[in-house]
Amino acid sequence: MMKGQVGQICFSRIFEDEDLVEAIRKRAEQNDIKSGALFVIGSLKRVVLGYYKEGKYDYIKLDDPLEIASGMGNIAVGEKGEVIVHMHLVVSNGKGEAFGGHLTEGSPVGATAELVIVEGVGVDLRRARDAKTGLNLWRPS
Amino acid sequence: MMKGQVGQICFSRIFEDEDLVEAIRKRAEQNDIKSGALFVIGSLKRVVLGYYKEGKYDYIKLDDPLEIASGMGNIAVGEKGEVIVHMHLVVSNGKGEAFGGHLTEGSPVGATAELVIVEGVGVDLRRARDAKTGLNLWRPS
Amino acid sequence: MMKGQVGQICFSRIFEDEDLVEAIRKRAEQNDIKSGALFVIGSLKRVVLGYYKEGKYDYIKLDDPLEIASGMGNIAVGEKGEVIVHMHLVVSNGKGEAFGGHLTEGSPVGATAELVIVEGVGVDLRRARDAKTGLNLWRPS
Repeated sequence: MMKGQVGQICFSRIFEDEDLVEAIRKRAEQNDIKSGALFVIGSLKRVVLGYYKEGKYDYIKLDDPLEIASGMGNIAVGEKGEVIVHMHLVVSNGKGEAFGGHLTEGSPVGATAELVIVEGVGVDLRRARDAKTGLNLWRPS
Repeated sequence: MMKGQVGQICFSRIFEDEDLVEAIRKRAEQNDIKSGALFVIGSLKRVVLGYYKEGKYDYIKLDDPLEIASGMGNIAVGEKGEVIVHMHLVVSNGKGEAFGGHLTEGSPVGATAELVIVEGVGVDLRRARDAKTGLNLWRPS
Repeated sequence: MMKGQVGQICFSRIFEDEDLVEAIRKRAEQNDIKSGALFVIGSLKRVVLGYYKEGKYDYIKLDDPLEIASGMGNIAVGEKGEVIVHMHLVVSNGKGEAFGGHLTEGSPVGATAELVIVEGVGVDLRRARDAKTGLNLWRPS
């Protein structure tokens, strides 16, 4: 278990048509946030959700406007020092039916999305390619 | 992006039959919390979920007892200085089926709900009416 | 409302086949974390979800591999001083369909799960048996 202190708490509105995961990555990069927990609520015009199966992702595309009922994830740093945002979503449609999965690019924000980041400092949270799963996993910690 | 420090972390039980969003707003007001992230798990006797569409909310009512599988949101201040709680829920029924949306009044707590607030200080997180969407959005930040 | 300060922020990978709730409890115990908020994303090989009804839990078992679309909960201390992890999940299957409920033992992690704990210090968050509901509830606060 990697333990650090809480740094800043950051609040950022994400605007209509911004790609959700790209928008978060950009804000983390611009504000030099290298580790933390993140939380999002809001809406999406459509979404691409990943489902991991035997070494790769299947993708589920939902083309209706959706509420982001829950967006949860974290910020870490990759092997080249790049910021990696890993986030899972629960979205819901006009009947309230909920769907979930790994947030993938191609998911533009609807009216708005509200991002909160709780930064971790004094930690070195890194991802590295895992041969068995093909995923960028947190290094054992 | 608005950046501040983390203030207090607050834990509060919400009791049977309290209206969930009102109960959170009341606790924030009484404790002078003006910005923060909030998280809730527990149960509800029934729920009203909002789905935003073209300038207004449609409402989905679920009348069965439900688990609060996820409650996530934030606290900000409105144009008149009032505390505004904005929160999205994922709820689940006796078959485990999940539903989601914007938490609306008319959603009383079941056996219990457990609220955690991570307060932000040194930020001025405000909402203002947005003409295009009709929503109280975070001011651009 | 019980108010404290934020202690450490902890990041921990949970490994394939670890039982999710046991793994979290073990990490909290080993690191002497007695109160806090916790967040998990990742995957599960299968899950047992509880649905509270009239004094007891019904259990819903889902045997397919699932994404943990959201895992949210808290750490508190029981009447004998033991660490109690209370957590609700939203999981999703290969069609993206979401299910939710109270996380129960018998839910082993898939490729990985990523745990974040935001510790609370200066609080005494305790659970005690509630006669009416039969649940270990937060003491009124």
